[in-house]
Amino acid sequence: MNKILLLGAGRSASVLLDYLLVNASTFNWQVAVGDVRVDHLARQVQQNPQLRAFVFDVQDEAQRREEIGRAEVVISMLPALFHPLVAQTCLDLEKHLVTASYVPPQIKAMHAQAEAKGLTFLMECGLDPGIDHLSAMRLIHQIQGQGGTITSFKSFTGGLMAPESDNNPWHYKFTWNPRNVILAGQGTARYKQDGSYKYIPYPVLFRRTETFLVEGFGYFDGYANRDSLGYLEPYGLEGIQTMLRGTLRRPGYCQAWQVLVHLGLTDDSYSLADSSHLTYGDLVRSFLPPSPESHLPLKEQVAAYLRIAPEVEELQLVEWTGLFDEVPIDLENATPAQALEKLLVQKWKLEPGDKDMIVMLHELEYEQEGDKRKCTSSLVVLGEDEVQTAMAKTVGLPLGIATKLLLQGKLQAKGVVVPLQPDLYLPILAELEQYGIRFTEREEQTSDFGVISRNQA
Amino acid sequence: MNKILLLGAGRSASVLLDYLLVNASTFNWQVAVGDVRVDHLARQVQQNPQLRAFVFDVQDEAQRREEIGRAEVVISMLPALFHPLVAQTCLDLEKHLVTASYVPPQIKAMHAQAEAKGLTFLMECGLDPGIDHLSAMRLIHQIQGQGGTITSFKSFTGGLMAPESDNNPWHYKFTWNPRNVILAGQGTARYKQDGSYKYIPYPVLFRRTETFLVEGFGYFDGYANRDSLGYLEPYGLEGIQTMLRGTLRRPGYCQAWQVLVHLGLTDDSYSLADSSHLTYGDLVRSFLPPSPESHLPLKEQVAAYLRIAPEVEELQLVEWTGLFDEVPIDLENATPAQALEKLLVQKWKLEPGDKDMIVMLHELEYEQEGDKRKCTSSLVVLGEDEVQTAMAKTVGLPLGIATKLLLQGKLQAKGVVVPLQPDLYLPILAELEQYGIRFTEREEQTSDFGVISRNQA
Repeated sequence: MNKILLLGAGRSASVLLDYLLVNASTFNWQVAVGDVRVDHLARQVQQNPQLRAFVFDVQDEAQRREEIGRAEVVISMLPALFHPLVAQTCLDLEKHLVTASYVPPQIKAMHAQAEAKGLTFLMECGLDPGIDHLSAMRLIHQIQGQGGTITSFKSFTGGLMAPESDNNPWHYKFTWNPRNVILAGQGTARYKQDGSYKYIPYPVLFRRTETFLVEGFGYFDGYANRDSLGYLEPYGLEGIQTMLRGTLRRPGYCQAWQVLVHLGLTDDSYSLADSSHLTYGDLVRSFLPPSPESHLPLKEQVAAYLRIAPEVEELQLVEWTGLFDEVPIDLENATPAQALEKLLVQKWKLEPGDKDMIVMLHELEYEQEGDKRKCTSSLVVLGEDEVQTAMAKTVGLPLGIATKLLLQGKLQAKGVVVPLQPDLYLPILAELEQYGIRFTEREEQTSDFGVISRNQA
Repeated sequence: MNKILLLGAGRSASVLLDYLLVNASTFNWQVAVGDVRVDHLARQVQQNPQLRAFVFDVQDEAQRREEIGRAEVVISMLPALFHPLVAQTCLDLEKHLVTASYVPPQIKAMHAQAEAKGLTFLMECGLDPGIDHLSAMRLIHQIQGQGGTITSFKSFTGGLMAPESDNNPWHYKFTWNPRNVILAGQGTARYKQDGSYKYIPYPVLFRRTETFLVEGFGYFDGYANRDSLGYLEPYGLEGIQTMLRGTLRRPGYCQAWQVLVHLGLTDDSYSLADSSHLTYGDLVRSFLPPSPESHLPLKEQVAAYLRIAPEVEELQLVEWTGLFDEVPIDLENATPAQALEKLLVQKWKLEPGDKDMIVMLHELEYEQEGDKRKCTSSLVVLGEDEVQTAMAKTVGLPLGIATKLLLQGKLQAKGVVVPLQPDLYLPILAELEQYGIRFTEREEQTSDFGVISRNQA
């Protein structure tokens, strides 16, 4: 009997847990789920004798060692910062580990030890990172297998709202950790374009977008992820001319987010003085210089400071968040980013019945037999409701399928592994298709795949 | 016989060393000087039997303990990052310590222990921090002593070039650690204005300046230092409406520096890919988006990207640095900031005979007997040449004088001390006047002290 320990039972684990329970009957698994709260799992525990749920504190070393010690494989959906701790315990107690997070340096450093102990620490096996790797590597290997030389690789993913639930002016709601959305892009985006390394500093990131059209779903703006260069070598694309990975938002979002960045509202590096006594209006004013316009409505002051018209769409979006309102922030020692997050968590909340949408686009250019060709691949996944989200499906199912492969002995790679090899991407992508997660591929010889314009002000 | 250990024998220590040697004869001191290089001190060692110079590696624990163990008081002009190490050894071996650096948290944490051992760790006793504290506290106590209530405190300091040596378009040369100049202002500037806390994010810091006129010396632009709020309590100004500390540059500098910040050239957080094969032109291009203007000269491309005319002064200044030239950076794994520093170290080098200039301005507003008053205080110090700089004088002399007071038992404060009290500022400011370091104070009842304009675009 295989024992699986799932750490983290939040919204994004819902589909994964269902997957594990369905397979638990077939394969005779036992599933234990630990999180800071598990009361929402009461019904499932009652209905599934293979399931045990318990309150879990990852920082309680005794409990961590006890629970991990009982398992054969640990799946962690905890916040990424806890993964080095979990991985160290897995290493000590010789347990496999599966996560959807990027490989942090501390876990990278465990590779040789994990390999020597015959353990698999499979990282980056959710949606992004995860399905993006799986599907990109399948495409790359297909093109290379038929003799093509890839010259350009671009890949964008977004967690958005399905058209029927897309009912706020940002065209966005939270389906994943809000804090990650608020802090997205901080640092400097690095990529390669036409043979040159390119850098986009965070203060201008959200105005350096590309617009894409996805048939049947309309337009999307893509901004660059922090580090595209780190995938040149793992993808086997060292000699490539263009390499760019990015994030999709609906048109309007990036321009409005740029206003928040410019003002300083996404800064998480210091606490606001006296934040518990400030309103959101005070917060915005604290970023404006003294000016002769200080008698004007706040929106007009911001417009004057940014040298834009008060009527422009981005200011309408900012106004909609409530940032110009004299509503107390009501947080002690908050950073600007924490104050902003508190506001947006209310405004960008999924409502009952809301359906989300995952969009992923790959665009590869390659040369074959003297021809320049282009291959595009796109994925759209829609959520069922505010619990069975497309996000939970696309993050959870690859984790579940990979765990099954691992327990079945079908995954040979040991050490710290990222899912780039056929023995992972072929079976996972095949099983994902049974859940409707299916890419549409298209070969072109000339025209641009839906790239409408580059907005690189 | 008092034994003084001076750590750090670079350019900025020249005046301090002279001061110590002159006083060594009078007071029967022995002076030891340690640094990574001390060969330039050979002549002074020959002429001064009280002086010993030796090659010193602060990270060599045995040597650090041996040399600090021999001393009674340690003066450190090493880079600030080494001060926690030096302070810990001083604490262990029960030696006094004097530095010109800000108090880092690790040294702040030593306060109770140092106090219990009867040690004085005098920090922030150079120019800025240092003379700014001494002179500000004298003014503050004067005004409070005559019954005034201070409502506004602004203080700006700049290390610049004397008019006769001010011969480049930036009106700036390095008289202090170049790296600190390149990274100046990173983070978020925090201050208080008209009763409200204000924040200026780094990406807009250099365009949020104030212009001042100093009689006989012309115009200066001031930008805000990172944390003015931290001095509210030490200065005893908690209830004040406006509190701002900043840095002075000559007009033109801040606008041009803003271009470098905007492009991303001051970023020290990541290494450029393949930096050893890039030219400065490549570096600048790596921050530009792909554009139809890529056939134009680089300066015009940058102008188009920034939406300014190629003829504007700030672009002339940037061009003058050589950033648009196809000259190899020739550094391995350089950050953008390191590449920029390498270029500017060549362009902003002091030439033989160059005279520098220190400018410090305080502007205090206060209410007394129903009147609103303003008191201004300004200091201009000129260097003798490229070695006996105004910077070396104004950093070194307060350190030297404070050390003398400490050895004479005239400094009672124990623990980690910042020079805010009369027993320090009165004798130090008095002795500084003997060296021509003298403030000019002015009382006004209405008009603005030289504030020409606020440039808060």
